[in-house]
Formats: sequence, structure tokens, C-alpha cells
Amino acid sequence: MPDPVHDGPIYADRLAALRAHLASEGLDGFVVPLTDEHLSEYVGDYAQRLGWLTGFAGSAGTAVVLAGAGPDRAAIFVDGRYTLQVRDQVDGAHWDYVGVPADSVAAWLGRHAPVGARIGYDPWLHTRGQVDQMAAALAPGGGVPVAVDANPIDAIWVDRPAPSDAPLTVQDDAHAGVGSAAKRADVAEWLTTQGADAVVIAALDSIAWLLNVRGDDVAHTPVGLAYALVHADGTADLFVEPGKVGDAVARHLGNAVRLHARAAFPAALDALAGKRVAADPDRCVTAIVDRLSTAGATPIAARDPVVLAKAVKNPVEIAGHRAASVRDGAALSRFLRWVAAEAPKGGQTELSAAARLLAFRQETGALLDASFETISATGAHGAIPHYRVTPQSDAPIEPGQLYLVDSGGQYADGTTDVTRVVPIGPPTAETRDRFTRVLKGHIAVAGASFPPGTVGTQIDALARRPLWDAGLDFAHGTGHGVGSYLAVHEGPARLAPPSYPGGGVFEPLLPGMILSDEPGYYKAGEYGIRIENLLLVTTREVPGADRAMLGFETLTFAPIDRDLIDPNLLTPAELDWLNAYHADVAATVGPVLDGEDRTWLAARCAPIG
Amino acid sequence: MPDPVHDGPIYADRLAALRAHLASEGLDGFVVPLTDEHLSEYVGDYAQRLGWLTGFAGSAGTAVVLAGAGPDRAAIFVDGRYTLQVRDQVDGAHWDYVGVPADSVAAWLGRHAPVGARIGYDPWLHTRGQVDQMAAALAPGGGVPVAVDANPIDAIWVDRPAPSDAPLTVQDDAHAGVGSAAKRADVAEWLTTQGADAVVIAALDSIAWLLNVRGDDVAHTPVGLAYALVHADGTADLFVEPGKVGDAVARHLGNAVRLHARAAFPAALDALAGKRVAADPDRCVTAIVDRLSTAGATPIAARDPVVLAKAVKNPVEIAGHRAASVRDGAALSRFLRWVAAEAPKGGQTELSAAARLLAFRQETGALLDASFETISATGAHGAIPHYRVTPQSDAPIEPGQLYLVDSGGQYADGTTDVTRVVPIGPPTAETRDRFTRVLKGHIAVAGASFPPGTVGTQIDALARRPLWDAGLDFAHGTGHGVGSYLAVHEGPARLAPPSYPGGGVFEPLLPGMILSDEPGYYKAGEYGIRIENLLLVTTREVPGADRAMLGFETLTFAPIDRDLIDPNLLTPAELDWLNAYHADVAATVGPVLDGEDRTWLAARCAPIG
Repeated sequence: MPDPVHDGPIYADRLAALRAHLASEGLDGFVVPLTDEHLSEYVGDYAQRLGWLTGFAGSAGTAVVLAGAGPDRAAIFVDGRYTLQVRDQVDGAHWDYVGVPADSVAAWLGRHAPVGARIGYDPWLHTRGQVDQMAAALAPGGGVPVAVDANPIDAIWVDRPAPSDAPLTVQDDAHAGVGSAAKRADVAEWLTTQGADAVVIAALDSIAWLLNVRGDDVAHTPVGLAYALVHADGTADLFVEPGKVGDAVARHLGNAVRLHARAAFPAALDALAGKRVAADPDRCVTAIVDRLSTAGATPIAARDPVVLAKAVKNPVEIAGHRAASVRDGAALSRFLRWVAAEAPKGGQTELSAAARLLAFRQETGALLDASFETISATGAHGAIPHYRVTPQSDAPIEPGQLYLVDSGGQYADGTTDVTRVVPIGPPTAETRDRFTRVLKGHIAVAGASFPPGTVGTQIDALARRPLWDAGLDFAHGTGHGVGSYLAVHEGPARLAPPSYPGGGVFEPLLPGMILSDEPGYYKAGEYGIRIENLLLVTTREVPGADRAMLGFETLTFAPIDRDLIDPNLLTPAELDWLNAYHADVAATVGPVLDGEDRTWLAARCAPIG
Repeated sequence: MPDPVHDGPIYADRLAALRAHLASEGLDGFVVPLTDEHLSEYVGDYAQRLGWLTGFAGSAGTAVVLAGAGPDRAAIFVDGRYTLQVRDQVDGAHWDYVGVPADSVAAWLGRHAPVGARIGYDPWLHTRGQVDQMAAALAPGGGVPVAVDANPIDAIWVDRPAPSDAPLTVQDDAHAGVGSAAKRADVAEWLTTQGADAVVIAALDSIAWLLNVRGDDVAHTPVGLAYALVHADGTADLFVEPGKVGDAVARHLGNAVRLHARAAFPAALDALAGKRVAADPDRCVTAIVDRLSTAGATPIAARDPVVLAKAVKNPVEIAGHRAASVRDGAALSRFLRWVAAEAPKGGQTELSAAARLLAFRQETGALLDASFETISATGAHGAIPHYRVTPQSDAPIEPGQLYLVDSGGQYADGTTDVTRVVPIGPPTAETRDRFTRVLKGHIAVAGASFPPGTVGTQIDALARRPLWDAGLDFAHGTGHGVGSYLAVHEGPARLAPPSYPGGGVFEPLLPGMILSDEPGYYKAGEYGIRIENLLLVTTREVPGADRAMLGFETLTFAPIDRDLIDPNLLTPAELDWLNAYHADVAATVGPVLDGEDRTWLAARCAPIG
């Protein structure tokens, strides 16, 4: 493991400055989530308050700061993906590390907040439910959560970046498959069934999908900062910085989408007085719901109607994803050949490899962005599921290691996400055993048949069984939804254990959803293994079935390292799956590759066992 | 399928009488659950209001009756176990059949109740949550649920049986393992952690376990009708008909358990004014919680503290169950030999076979009761998972059929529950395929290793996979908890899909819990298959594991029919499990059997494959 990369003094100063500011505001504490006004998972630099305060560079977490000093007066909450990373990046002298979902912000506040505590929160960064949980936990000690008018972090973060001013672009119908007017008409019809006059759409990817626009305000996720109101007549109000809307986008949106400055959004909620307004309690911050109530509107708690429509891909989106997958699989295959050839020679590092992979994807001529920051992790870094390589952490790729690469591309026709592991030199018996068990779990999902109504937590169990059999497990979900040239983590469905903090595990899987299948195994300080393909939920004809069944079609094409597979651990059915998959890879990606790459791919895809 | 056995005119008259009574009370409808004042799953004859009204003989269901006539004015709600049976027993001319959990009483009321409806309910037969759901569903139409002072069914059921007057008996420490004073001390300690003064224990099996008494007021479940209050000093008040407490029980209970008439219970709640009183919202009816509030006590919503203590068996209870299992397995093995020999000769029926099985159990000299009404189902009856044989439905057991028998015994040292299927004559390729897939699912559970924190819905998925692979499934849970000489269905844990109506599927499995493992397959009109053993949750040492794991120890010993197994469908690991299990059966039960039975058993347990 490399030395910790956190810079203690800077973060200690920031923590002290926050405590001084809280005291001046009469607050006994403050909660710092990693999100934005849209409850986004990935956020712009302007909203990276958690990282600025603590040094934590992961994609999910929350901090709580109380008055006083010492590790029981400030805590950072992360899930199993970040158990190792948070200790590497955040100073344990000032911060208590707390694991979720075993513990929670509310429960920790209940145990640690002083009697009568006034705990501040920014109402533009929390759901009503989160605030209610804090209130319930603080109540026995006479404490209360207090909504702040301005975020205290912003008051002390002197060089805080401004929100991005990147322009919106049009996602044309050839890629979107369905025009925005038709999508809005579906929302209008839904409003009628809810007896509602309008719906607030605050989730950025919902707005992008609904209006067939894209943006560049969040790294790797092509969304633009905006709010939308959709009305029962199918028209919409879009609240977005005027400078972001060029002529082409304005023409595309048309007269039925009225444009307003983003800052005009809160006041527009007041104008809904007397109306019944749907607002998703999990996707609208409490500030929105509270303001609707105060203004005299009736908020209706209902899921954002775009969420499911967006998750169930239409035929054009599915065809687009298939095309993107072949293109992306060819680039990844070229990279895998390059790693296998170059890494053993020495001189390559996690950063140089990530750069080479990006170059291969760029050579497709279609890459618009990486779909997330590439996880290029060798040796012990692989055991950090969401490892992020930096110049400080960059490690040489060396013989005897497993090199793990989890990456994806944003293309106009689809968003990819794929993980492969390459052994640098001959693997050990242990890593082959572990890799093969992870593969068995991957195949258990990819090859599953299941009845309609099945939810992700049921599928997740299938992925874990081969690891459980050996007394092993992994501390993250098995899979997440993926957007169409949108967020690489997309709701509502997820494959994960019942208690998974992100939710979505009880969402029925529907044909057209795209989900990742990425079981793993991690040995702290030594190596990490993960095998990830994207899967499309499909109807499945099972010979002899007595009921309709669903299944998956694998969308990702790249060889799974054969040297890491112990065929003796695979059942005949699993071997059949593997050989059929590799035949598909060779048949699909091979024709896109030139001579030597194609020859290499064919050899790596030859039948096993 | 046999002819329907319902007697239309009687039930039509009763329905009309109920409607007339409701009209006289100013009610627009009434809800009739199948439960008692203790929210019991199985209830005494006096509380069989659903069956009396509708003719339905299943163990779970609810009826709703609205004013008017026709099948959209009355509905009966049953789960997947009773989909076929309800159509056989309840007249579709008067009743709408509704499946739960796809639909619900509350949702149906929301759609069908007239505007402004006053829908009656008996507050001694519903939880607060159930009433709240009805209220929410009725609200948009201006309707309300109305608590009745007296149950309208009781007013028209002229020959309604009185509650049982069976005496209580002592469950001695040699079987209970822990004395009642120690158990009450644990409850008292729990009250301290809750900051509560007392707890209402309304669940009959909780009372029986806590006080180490048993009763005979509910068929097959050895509990007595009573309420209990346990106080922070470890003393208790027991509300039970005085005639049920003989000298031995009174001495056993001692001075720390004060006896009161059962009818004195409601007034005793009033005496808790000013106290903090724990009352399980899922195990105390709304009448109890409402009365506490009205009296000025503070009800604390917390799970009945006996539930988990009772579910995690102590070493004496586990040893007792093992002894009961061997005894019961020997009786069942003798029966299986008898069926195989006698049924092909003709002349046997479902009832004669059930009687023969009961006789074998009685010959152990230790049987106190069957643990539920034996499901003795041949041919098409087997496809009704909870089939109940009656003189009207009794069918001959004939060559070409599968005969399914699901039964158990109540012994002072344990409660058993086991299902086996016997082919009468050579089975078909299809039934062997289906039986072997069910067996694969059974083995997937019985042989599973899983980390602490795993819940039943995860294990359930493992049981279904071999059926899903073939486009098949079954419409009931995979397993339920089992008591120690108590209820054959015991909470809190259950192996079932996430949406299972009985709940408990998110309860972590703990060492000491006893659960059934009973996947099945049902072909309507043809046959049913189910393979059920009881399993004990244990810690498990997995060689090479990197974490503590749990697993199961099979407690049930009886041969699984080898003629129904297709060894080609089993993996080597599954064959190993099967052969090891049969070796255990022969080694454990064989010594208890005499010559010919033992020889037969050894042959049926010989290695396969």
C-alpha cells in the first residue's frame, strides 16, 4: 500500500474554520453530504464540498462535524467500496470512520450530538426523509436539525469554483429514438392518472432524457444543471442559465418548452399555489417540497415518471448500445493485448496504462468522454473497489500482480462500463481460484432465467453463492443500471443485497433495462478481482417452460482472461457459457480489428476445457 | 379434479344475513380476517369466522363484504398457496377471488367501496397498520374504517363454538432448557434498555414459551388463550380463564406470575396509565394499542422481545429437536415403506394413508399431537400446496400418480415438519425432471454457506434457480421457522421472495434458528412435488474462508425417493450431498427400526450415481 496521500494540515485548518463559522451561526454541528441540488451521485466541482473539507476523493459519502475536537466530534460515513480508501485519504486524528449501512448519519448524531443540539443542514442537499431521520434521532436528546439559508462550507471555501457554464447540446432523434414531445405527452398522461397539474423534475439525467438534450456540467456524465416543470398539457418550463442554450438547442426545444433562468426556479414554485404538484421525495430536495407546501401547492409524493421510462431502453437506444459496445469492445481488446505485451517489460504504471486505454477509445473517432474516471489499479490498489489513481498514488505495473481496469466510454449511441483483470506474469493458484469463483458468479447472473417480478436482490444472491461456498464475499453490489449516453449509474433497478444503501434492489427487472454484472473479490493489501459486463434484460423462451420468463443478453464484448480461469472449477454449463461468450466476442469484435489484433483476439477467445 | 365441495346455498344465506346485519348497524361493509385476538395464524373454532362465512378451509385469507350483491361486492383474498383451493371451496357467483400480495384488502376497498363508505372492522382482529392502510385507501372516496363494538359475524353465527376450555400444562425445564424466571429476567433487562415499564405479550406462542406452559386451545398448536403483561421487575400478570390453571401449573408459575381472568385484560391496560408500555405493533391488535393510549399510557412500538429469544433455540431445545427428529423420521420411514408396498395394490385413499401415518407416529409412544393437519394429497390434489383432505375430497391413491405427504408431530421435545413424495408405480421422465430440480433447489439451501447478516430472501433465490433455469417456479415461500413443541410456523425469519406477504424475509438468520427448506413444483390438475426437511442454522468452518460463515445442519431424517431422482441432472457436489444425507438417514434412523423396516431403509439410502 502506498503512503497516505492526504495533506493533513490543510484539512485540519478547513475543519477548524468550519467549526468557527458554525459557532458564529449558533449551530452545534453541520452535515456535509456529497451531492448537489439535484441529488446527483456525481457532482460538479462547485459542489465537491465533502472532498474539499476532508480530502476524501470517493464518489459517495457524508461528513458530520460537531463542535469540539477529536475523532468522536467529526465523522465521515462511507460504504463498503470505500472502507480502505477513506482511511488512506482522511485523517483519523480528526475524523471517525463510520461504515454504512451498518451505521447511519442519523444514528451517529443520536449517539454523539450534545443535549439540545442545533444541527445545521443545507435544505438544497437533503431529502425530506433524511431530515426526518435526523430529527427523530436528535429528538430524545432535545436536539433539532436546522435548515441553513446559506451553506457554511461555501462561506469559508474562498476559491470555490463557479458552476460549469458548458452549453447544452441536442441528442437527436436518431439516437434518442423517441422525440421529446412524445416523451412529454407520456408524462402528461401520467399526470392525469395522478390527478396532478404538474411535476417537478429535478434529477439532471431525467431532464436530459426527457428533453433530448445533453450537457457537460458534471465530469463524465453528459447532463446540464437545470430544473424542469412539466405540465398536464405536455408543455414544460426549463430553468437553466441562459448562456447554456444556443440557437440549435432553442430550436430543438421549441415553443412548448419555456426557458427561464435557473435562479428563477424557487419563485416559480410559489406560482404553483393551489395546484397539485408531483415531486419525487427521493429525487427532489426538501427545499423544493417545503417551498411547494409553503406556497400553498399540494405536493404529491410520487416517483419521477421519467425514471422508469428512461431505464427501459427503446429499440433505437438498444441498437445504439449494441453498436457502442462493439466499438468499445474493440478498443478494450486492443488495450488488453497491449497490457499483456507491454506490462511485463516494465515501465508502465497505472496512469500510463489508463492514458493508453483512453487513446485506444479515442482512436474509435466516436468517443465523447470516458463514462467515469478509469479505475486503473495494480496489485494492492485493486483491492480498493473504487480506487482512483492520482500522480501521488500512481504505482508501477509489475510481474506477479493482477492489474484491474474498470472503465467505460460515453458515445452518442451509448454508455459503456466494463471491468477486466490481467495477470502480469503467471497467476497463482489462489488468484485463479478466486477469479474463477467470481466468474462463476458472473455467469450465474448472465445466464439466469427468472420470472417477471423478480428483483435485483434475488439475482444478487446467485452471484455470491460461488464465493460463499468458499467462505468469501464482496462488499459492493453486483450491478447497477446504465443510461443511454447518460449516467453510468442509473436507477431505479440495482442488483445488490437487501440492505444495500443505494436502494433499488426491490425494483422489478423489466425487459429493456441495462444493468451491469460485476461480482468481485478483494484481498486487502494484495489484489482485487472484478469481472464486469453490461446485460440487457430480455424476454426469454425457455424450452418446456410453463410460464413466461425473463433473462439477460450480454452487451459487452471483450475477452475474459483465460489464464486466470481454472476450468476444473466450472460446470459443463458454465464452460458452455464461457465458450459461447468468447465465440461471440471473436465474431463481433474480431471483424472491427486489424490483422494482429484480430489474431490475438481469436487466440484469447478459443474454446477452453 | 374432484367436484367443488362448497355448499352454495348455506354460504349465500350467511352472506345475506351479514349484509342485513351490517345495514342495521349503519355499515357499508365489513372486513373478515382469519385470525384471533392474538393475531394467531391458526385459530380456535370460535374464531373461524372466515370459513363459516365463505366455506374457505385454508389457513390464511381475508374476506371483505360490501352492501349490494354480485362478485364485485364481496371478495376473498388469498395467497398463491390457495389460488386453486379457493375456487374449489368458495362460490364465484358471490365472491371475487383476489390474489395477494399483487392486490390487497386496502387497495380493493379503495377501488370498490362506495363514496363516503363506512367500512366496519373488529379492532381485536387487526393491527393498527392494517387499519391505517384501509383508512388511506378509503380517504380519497371520503370513506372511513369504523371499529365495531361487537363482531357482526358473531351476531349472526347462532351456533358459534365457545372458546376452548382445555387446561394449561407445564413444559418442564428438562425440555424448555431455561426456566421461566430466567426468561422473564431477560425480558425485564430488555425493558430497561427500552426505557419501558412493562410489555404486553399477546402472541400465544410467546406467552407459552415465556412461562414454560403449553395449552390445547388451537388445533395442533399447543398454546392456551391468554394475555400477559411483563414488568420491569421480572414479575408478570397472566390473564387466562381460571378453570384452565390447575394446581401443578399454578405451583409452576409461582408467586411472581399473578393470575387474572382473561376478561380482566382490557381493564388492566387502563391501570397502566402514566407508564411506558411496549406493545409490538405487528403482534398486538389495534384495540390493545388504542386502549393504552386512551388510558394515558405511552405505547412503545417495539418487537415482542420473546420473538427472537424463542426463535434462537437453546442447547436443550436443539438436543430435544434432534431426538424428536430421529423418532419422527423412523415413523415416517415406516410409513413410506408402507405406502410403496400397499398403494400399488389399490384400496388406499388419502384419508386411509393419513390415518396410517398418524398410527405410525402414535406407535412411538411420544406423540402429543400432529403438528398440523396432514396434507395427504395424491395426483392432482398434490398441486394444491395446502390441500386438506376431507371425506368429500378423499381420493384413491392410484398407479401413475405422485403421492405427496406433508406432515409433522408435536412431541414434548420438539415439533417436526417434513414432506416427501412417493411415485405410485414408475414415474414419468417429466416428474423425475421436476422432482430432481426441486431436489437441486433443496440442496442449494441445505448446503449453503453464507455470511452473518444474510436474510431469508437471499437464500430463497438459491432454491429457485434450478427451477427458473427450466422456466418453472413455485408460488410459496421456501421455508418458515418452527417452534420447540410450539407453532409449526414460527417467526421471525422466513425464506421467501422479497414481496412475500408473511414478512420475515429480511430477518438475519442466526445460529440456533430452525427453518424448513421446502421448495416445490406444482402442475395444476396433474401433480405436486415438495421436498421438505428442517434445518438448524449453525456456524460453519469453511476451509480457506476469509470470514466467519454460517450454514445449515439438516435435522430431518427420512429417505428422499430415489426413483424420482435423475442423477444425470445432479452435479457431483449435489450427488455428494444426497449420498451423505442418505447415509446419515440410515445411520440415524436405521437403529431405531426393526428388521424388515431397517433393511428397506438401507436399500432406499444406498448411494446413487
